[in-house]
Amino acid sequence: MTAREPETLRVELGPRSYAILIGRGLIGAVESYRDLPPADACAVVTNETVGPLYADRLAVALSAVFAKVHRVVLPDGEAYKDWPTLQRIFDALVEANCDRKTTVFALGGGVVGDMAGFAAACYMRGVPCVQVPTTLLAQVDSAVGGKTAINHALGKNMIGSFSQPCLVVADVDTLDTLPEREFASGLAEVIKYGAVADDAFLGWIESNLAALKARDKRVLVHAVKRSCEIKAAIVAQDEREAGVRAILNFGHTFAHAIETGTGYGTWLHGEAVGCGMAMAANLSVRLGLLDPAYASRLIRLVGDAGLPLRAPSLATARFLELMRGDKKAVAGNMRFVLLDGPGHAIVRACDIGPVVDTIEQFCAGV
Amino acid sequence: MTAREPETLRVELGPRSYAILIGRGLIGAVESYRDLPPADACAVVTNETVGPLYADRLAVALSAVFAKVHRVVLPDGEAYKDWPTLQRIFDALVEANCDRKTTVFALGGGVVGDMAGFAAACYMRGVPCVQVPTTLLAQVDSAVGGKTAINHALGKNMIGSFSQPCLVVADVDTLDTLPEREFASGLAEVIKYGAVADDAFLGWIESNLAALKARDKRVLVHAVKRSCEIKAAIVAQDEREAGVRAILNFGHTFAHAIETGTGYGTWLHGEAVGCGMAMAANLSVRLGLLDPAYASRLIRLVGDAGLPLRAPSLATARFLELMRGDKKAVAGNMRFVLLDGPGHAIVRACDIGPVVDTIEQFCAGV
Repeated sequence: MTAREPETLRVELGPRSYAILIGRGLIGAVESYRDLPPADACAVVTNETVGPLYADRLAVALSAVFAKVHRVVLPDGEAYKDWPTLQRIFDALVEANCDRKTTVFALGGGVVGDMAGFAAACYMRGVPCVQVPTTLLAQVDSAVGGKTAINHALGKNMIGSFSQPCLVVADVDTLDTLPEREFASGLAEVIKYGAVADDAFLGWIESNLAALKARDKRVLVHAVKRSCEIKAAIVAQDEREAGVRAILNFGHTFAHAIETGTGYGTWLHGEAVGCGMAMAANLSVRLGLLDPAYASRLIRLVGDAGLPLRAPSLATARFLELMRGDKKAVAGNMRFVLLDGPGHAIVRACDIGPVVDTIEQFCAGV
Repeated sequence: MTAREPETLRVELGPRSYAILIGRGLIGAVESYRDLPPADACAVVTNETVGPLYADRLAVALSAVFAKVHRVVLPDGEAYKDWPTLQRIFDALVEANCDRKTTVFALGGGVVGDMAGFAAACYMRGVPCVQVPTTLLAQVDSAVGGKTAINHALGKNMIGSFSQPCLVVADVDTLDTLPEREFASGLAEVIKYGAVADDAFLGWIESNLAALKARDKRVLVHAVKRSCEIKAAIVAQDEREAGVRAILNFGHTFAHAIETGTGYGTWLHGEAVGCGMAMAANLSVRLGLLDPAYASRLIRLVGDAGLPLRAPSLATARFLELMRGDKKAVAGNMRFVLLDGPGHAIVRACDIGPVVDTIEQFCAGV
């Protein structure tokens, strides 16, 4: 199988720079993997849902590049983004005598990408990792930028690393098999890039939402490419989230509370981000940072994308407590990514009053 | 308590550069910690043996710098360098609401340093870590250079990271409480630096061995300083062990087989390295790389330092199998760090014949 010429971006991080390929038919194309550092073996980490769909196709292409292609199949779901499941990857790598050059391929969505990426970061103190994201959310967000993690019982993504992949292969053909909820979840992150960094892109999403939802490949390639461009530019400025990269967490402080409070896996990550962005936009208006009309426009787009706008019925005190456990909290003070204009975000600590008002408004529905 | 002016080295790694302080009375001296990045809280990770000796002294000094000083006390021993024990550190950090700025202090030997360092590398994708090594082995080796890890049932240090500390405080006063076997274990690594990088230092160790074993503080400061200088220079050239850093693993391929084959904790790491260096020197002679007289001199020094020269009675086939699982193995071929002259080492793959001969000679005693 031959790929059409893919779109190629580069994440510029000095010695850790890497390419993102975006296009159709890339997973099964040997050319996608030609520039990888030479190694005897690779290991494809995937899950029980994605593996049967794409692992054979990937393995056939990889067998042209690697003498040995091992496979590790994990159970599917955020509930398995934990240590025992990570340990299964380590066990498989050790048992297959994988060495320091063995390249780990993460074939799947955000959970597989985070776990395989973290496993690759830690196995023998780091082996190369290629991200092959098969969900929209992973293609536009989690596969790019080097954040890897597993969950802790008391907090999401608490244990992890900043560890860049050596290649990202985003094959939009995989989005055909994505369930509606998963697809909408990815749209949340696409919308996020427009909201925090590119108002023109937000307008493009509004204009092309129907085509996106119909999974038109041409518009999907553009959506993934523009999202990755924005993320790559921000990550290149701030790899380890010491500053500007934090704006990519727009909606995420509320979202983490929703995900942890309802139990991982009840809400999809992007669903929580969608609702969280609506809440953060609402809070931005309460703080006098944002025009209410812009917030309404953003909230409408989130809803039109098929994302929930009503937060789960958690007690306000519990919601606050869960937000305080967020990694962006410093010494117990809550910090939020807020919009202070169209396509522009800032990070700010804020008083509890308006936060409570936003929580109560969204827990009661909008 | 005021420290005498410590010796200060710098590990030059660009944005990850850091200082090593070496001297007496440093643990309890507030000045040791003045230049750390500001943070509200810190967490002292130690074990049941070292904690009662030094944790109070450290905590008093730290309370002048940090508003909150948390403590995590682990069981003592290489047998606990595993995931469940690492998880105890994560649990304690999460439960104490530690944030991204919380500084982790590793107070103890190599096991505490590796585990606290790895925990710091992974907690919220990385918090600052200060190494406060209390064993000779940790002061001259494991606390410096950023290697962190836990063991896997099938291999030592299989899961870990390269993650530099932001400061190393090597207080030689702690060496007074070190049991004989632990002290000799540290001497193994000191001897290693002479063998692989500085023949004059090897001569100095021979001349000062009695004073070292008597724990004369002046000679200890020099031994720690020169060892750290050599290690810092090599790490600065090759942080992630892509090349020259591998020479610091002299003796370690044999040593890992000894440690894994006898069960972690039966042999101390430095004891295994001592015997492993003798074996590697022997192998170097067999391969025609090294003058037999130099090998004999090195082996004599290892023995005089109080280290074992007889390998455990493992079957040769088992010994080979355990060495093949070593991280330096690439695609199943064994590579060894060998001496090719006084104070000089190289990394080379080698035929199985002489390796078998060396194993059989040492398993039968020398």
